[in-house]
Amino acid sequence: MTVRIAVVAPSSRLSPEVIGLTEALAARLWPARPPSLVFHPQCLASSGHFAGDDATRAAAFVEVANSEAFDAVWFARGGYGSGRLVELILPHLTAEARDKAYLGYSDGGALLAALYGWGCEDAAHGPMAQDILRPGGEAAAARALAWLVDRDPAALEPSVAEADKTAAFNVAVLGSIIGTPAQPELSGHVLMLEEVSEYMYRIDRDLCHITSNADIRRCAGIRLGRCSDIPANDPDFVLNEVEVAQYWCARSGIPWLGRADIGHDADNKVVPFGAAR
Amino acid sequence: MTVRIAVVAPSSRLSPEVIGLTEALAARLWPARPPSLVFHPQCLASSGHFAGDDATRAAAFVEVANSEAFDAVWFARGGYGSGRLVELILPHLTAEARDKAYLGYSDGGALLAALYGWGCEDAAHGPMAQDILRPGGEAAAARALAWLVDRDPAALEPSVAEADKTAAFNVAVLGSIIGTPAQPELSGHVLMLEEVSEYMYRIDRDLCHITSNADIRRCAGIRLGRCSDIPANDPDFVLNEVEVAQYWCARSGIPWLGRADIGHDADNKVVPFGAAR
Repeated sequence: MTVRIAVVAPSSRLSPEVIGLTEALAARLWPARPPSLVFHPQCLASSGHFAGDDATRAAAFVEVANSEAFDAVWFARGGYGSGRLVELILPHLTAEARDKAYLGYSDGGALLAALYGWGCEDAAHGPMAQDILRPGGEAAAARALAWLVDRDPAALEPSVAEADKTAAFNVAVLGSIIGTPAQPELSGHVLMLEEVSEYMYRIDRDLCHITSNADIRRCAGIRLGRCSDIPANDPDFVLNEVEVAQYWCARSGIPWLGRADIGHDADNKVVPFGAAR
Repeated sequence: MTVRIAVVAPSSRLSPEVIGLTEALAARLWPARPPSLVFHPQCLASSGHFAGDDATRAAAFVEVANSEAFDAVWFARGGYGSGRLVELILPHLTAEARDKAYLGYSDGGALLAALYGWGCEDAAHGPMAQDILRPGGEAAAARALAWLVDRDPAALEPSVAEADKTAAFNVAVLGSIIGTPAQPELSGHVLMLEEVSEYMYRIDRDLCHITSNADIRRCAGIRLGRCSDIPANDPDFVLNEVEVAQYWCARSGIPWLGRADIGHDADNKVVPFGAAR
């Protein structure tokens, strides 16, 4: 059966060249049974920072999420904007939307979290369409497609297999939904966190914030993904990202579980929200 | 009666020259009854990003807050670090600490918020000792001292007089305590917000975060202080800070009350947490 994937952009605009590159990759990976990839025209819309204004992005998302014509919704790209849509999307979702797969990360984590909290059992952190443009990015796109098409266990972050339940977030994006209706219940989940382009004092502040939340303190433990492109702190922060994460685990009583194979890079692995299917 | 002010640094290290400048200013402003200004040695301690490590900063704060020898605790400087101390300070405060005045802003807002939530009725957002080094900063320091020494109504943000209860925060710092025990109950408060050196998309994300919190939605309204040194957004965010704040007020049902005379500058006014005394 052909797996039917809709691509929408709840945050920033997709680079147009991604469409042809991704279609060619999918055809090459599954010559006998290529998945159907439908890039919603909204992916290329533009309104300031966003791939179209809030109403346009929310409408496109609701359209594909509620449609019987698709099995999965693949986030086109991060950037900024998915959290703006939570209250515009959730009240309009139907049972059809609950049974779909959703894949994205970074800024998309705000919306993925809200979908998971709403009852989606097949949302996951993982590469987005735009990642094909990264150095070595075809591997990221192929990994995302392998999960979307075949739920290939090789696409999963390695420690997922040992965990009852998991969730993964960009640190700043998780921080931005703490204490809001988009924050999902994560007790008993292994929480994987990654960051990019943030000063160490901000990573520290966000981890202080996140680990001070009572619900987060009930998670099964924290694994730290890659924190890349950290600008120089002035003054030097002394602690690196692992030491900072260990500090906040110790302070909050959350088990420190080590590293996670996720990050803003081509090696970013898939982490299901909840139990792996 | 001599007003006795202790200065401590829960965040970043004080510049040493501030001490002499502030003492001279106080002597000039109150020649007949100079306030007693005690700069705790911890103000000049250094540990990476901070004015001493967490234990050192927390101990100094608890010492002066609990001491009968002081009427007020003046935050030396912002930067980063006060939120780290909330759980290290609050359990150790006594009734003596509850009756003191506390003055600071910016990063200090995390600790001020926690003190207010704990029951301090005389905490306020306002200039810190380090502000004397700003261009025109003597006016800021004089305003802070006028509030600390005389509760001079001229030091207050002008709209405070019309409000039942008020609170003021740096946008990012308020964001960093949403959903944590440091977040105070702000229903019925006029909430004044200011920002410095943040991209417009981050101001937007933080305001989305803050106005999505159920308790914040019960505030009496939002006033926006100055948002200064905003780096250029790429792509252009289109909306400016006033339009962004108005958007989130409209989305969240929080009344938009206009501007506030606060910000990271020498004109920054005093805003009490709660009802003005």
